[in-house]
Amino acid sequence: MSRTTDRRALLKAGGAGLALLGGGRLASAAEPTTRREPGGGFSNYGLPPERAGSPIRWISSDPGVPGDGVSWTPLHELEGTITPNGLHFERHHAGVPAIDGTRWRCIVDGLVTRELALDLEALHAMPMRSRIAFIECGGNSNALWRPEPVQAPVGWLHGLVSCSEWTGVPLAAVLAAAGPAQTGRWLVADGLDASGVTVSLPLERLPDDAMIALYQNGEAIRPEQGWPARLVLPGIEGIAQVKWLGRLRVTDRPAMSRFDTVSYTDRQPDGQARRFTRTMGVKSLITLPSVGRPVSTGTVEISGLAWSGAGRIERVEVSIDGGRRWREATLDGPVLDQALTRFRYPWSRAAMPAVLASRATDSSGALQPMRAALIGEQGHNAYYHYNAVLGLAIDSDGHVEHVHV
Amino acid sequence: MSRTTDRRALLKAGGAGLALLGGGRLASAAEPTTRREPGGGFSNYGLPPERAGSPIRWISSDPGVPGDGVSWTPLHELEGTITPNGLHFERHHAGVPAIDGTRWRCIVDGLVTRELALDLEALHAMPMRSRIAFIECGGNSNALWRPEPVQAPVGWLHGLVSCSEWTGVPLAAVLAAAGPAQTGRWLVADGLDASGVTVSLPLERLPDDAMIALYQNGEAIRPEQGWPARLVLPGIEGIAQVKWLGRLRVTDRPAMSRFDTVSYTDRQPDGQARRFTRTMGVKSLITLPSVGRPVSTGTVEISGLAWSGAGRIERVEVSIDGGRRWREATLDGPVLDQALTRFRYPWSRAAMPAVLASRATDSSGALQPMRAALIGEQGHNAYYHYNAVLGLAIDSDGHVEHVHV
Repeated sequence: MSRTTDRRALLKAGGAGLALLGGGRLASAAEPTTRREPGGGFSNYGLPPERAGSPIRWISSDPGVPGDGVSWTPLHELEGTITPNGLHFERHHAGVPAIDGTRWRCIVDGLVTRELALDLEALHAMPMRSRIAFIECGGNSNALWRPEPVQAPVGWLHGLVSCSEWTGVPLAAVLAAAGPAQTGRWLVADGLDASGVTVSLPLERLPDDAMIALYQNGEAIRPEQGWPARLVLPGIEGIAQVKWLGRLRVTDRPAMSRFDTVSYTDRQPDGQARRFTRTMGVKSLITLPSVGRPVSTGTVEISGLAWSGAGRIERVEVSIDGGRRWREATLDGPVLDQALTRFRYPWSRAAMPAVLASRATDSSGALQPMRAALIGEQGHNAYYHYNAVLGLAIDSDGHVEHVHV
Repeated sequence: MSRTTDRRALLKAGGAGLALLGGGRLASAAEPTTRREPGGGFSNYGLPPERAGSPIRWISSDPGVPGDGVSWTPLHELEGTITPNGLHFERHHAGVPAIDGTRWRCIVDGLVTRELALDLEALHAMPMRSRIAFIECGGNSNALWRPEPVQAPVGWLHGLVSCSEWTGVPLAAVLAAAGPAQTGRWLVADGLDASGVTVSLPLERLPDDAMIALYQNGEAIRPEQGWPARLVLPGIEGIAQVKWLGRLRVTDRPAMSRFDTVSYTDRQPDGQARRFTRTMGVKSLITLPSVGRPVSTGTVEISGLAWSGAGRIERVEVSIDGGRRWREATLDGPVLDQALTRFRYPWSRAAMPAVLASRATDSSGALQPMRAALIGEQGHNAYYHYNAVLGLAIDSDGHVEHVHV
């Protein structure tokens, strides 16, 4: 093999960092290839190893307000799109309530022909559906509204988004059983935690595949994710996907709870708040390289996540010059509605320094906005629903810094 | 609402078991709707609750042969298609080896232009891909070869199959970097456990999306699943998806290891063994109702899993009369190549007694065989690769028994 084809094969494999076997030198330094004793045994439920560097959720909570806080999915340490249940983000307003599943009911009442009290047995007797969907907190990425870019790993800024396979009873079937009155316009959902979560949703804007979910990634939903049952409303902000679901009330008007008014609304430059803007916008971010994950090898694949509450990801483009020129990235399939989508883009450290950015377009035609456009529209009073293009400056040593582009 | 439409609404919702609210009676028996104290706090890595009945893997191992055995995915207690990492089946021949990731290499040698020693850094520098795929042990369901049907929960008979999102480096890129010689016909893969796993695979029959996998459902592959790296060969039997991968050798002939000859081969009626029949056949099974999961409510949804090593599931049919008549079930999307696919079929306990069965057809046109046809072809010497239609007899009380159909 000539030196040229040699190099070509390497580049094709993206493997400029591959070690050649040097007369057994590397082989002798490697792991033993023969073991004589059997290794560790079996377990009923497997856990990740307790190893330095194993991914964990970072917790942001105020000890002065017990039960209020978040834990972040470490997006910068994960690959693919499915989030393990143990690393799904959490946003609690009053901690995780201890619920007695045998006494639990979900009440369906209000403007309905038949009031229902659904216990776990009743829900399990109904037809179910499974689908993969992301859940994102409306407050995800809110540190990005600040004028100065924050230097923190991607997961600790943007990790209030996770993606699971959810299984449950279609909300449409439950509502059909209750029979909403003609005057019913809103669905008001109550959670059973001490924060008194109440969220109002326009009936006509409920996603087709909204469900009362009972399973997450195959197993019963865990207490911190809303056991015994939660709403899953693909594409809608997390607060509305009410955990520890206790009541669904059909009404002719919204409840105007604090979660409808004070929180999760978009304060405009004039001080007025836009309400019920619950569908999450089209968004993408690069997870590798990123802050704390420098460029250390010869050839680098830029990799990241994209998603949209309005549908599926149609296209992700990557820029290496801060947003002047954009080139299309590849998407790992399947590309699903309201699901995290992994994109990849080949890149070489020969191009450093650089300013990386990604932007996504969804199936509704919406393009992820540049920061200036988002700020221009929302002004400086906003706190929720940040989805602008993110910038990463790579210096000539491969060090990564978050920058506004 | 008349009594008729009332009943229709209920049936439409599959909700014959729905409780009506009787003047606050049920509401007062239900969970409190107001909590005054915050609940439990956050964790860095979440675990399922320690609750009676939480799904676990059942372990079959012989204390006299340390490290040899299996743990079964409790398919009868799970929903959807993704298996949580903690419940993925395991089949170990010599336990879980403790591997030093800093010293680990995967050697690529044999009939190649360039011998390689890939460490974790080198693999992480190469482009990756993610895809959802099942892994099934070639010995899954082997108790079904017995003449008498075994009465055990579905997971304890058929739970050596699980499904994950895998991420890793395409095997094609690694082989391209090594440059197989024209005389190379086989790939021989060695695992680093004490059992000396060696498996031979024809190069031309490697799946297009074969990979050296580094991540499972987002997080680094756990030790029991092959950390630091394993082969993932979608559709091929589990033994060939070598864990704790230590060496890939390109050869002109198979190694004829014990895993190529004594085990994982199909002994024919005449005593001869068919070898290298590694692609898993088209298969389906009902998980609800099933042995240990009786029919207890008014309306039941029959639900189960289907998969094929040859492609995607094209169709699943369900019979309630032991295989005389078949009706098409619905499939939860996305329906993916070499992935578990959830099927559902509405059914009513009014039809009991009954004998339930399911049969799948894959995208290659292959139809899951009836038991008589499989036995007719394979005879009574077989142990691996059982994929025949399974029968479940439901008596008039809803009790479920495994029967041969």
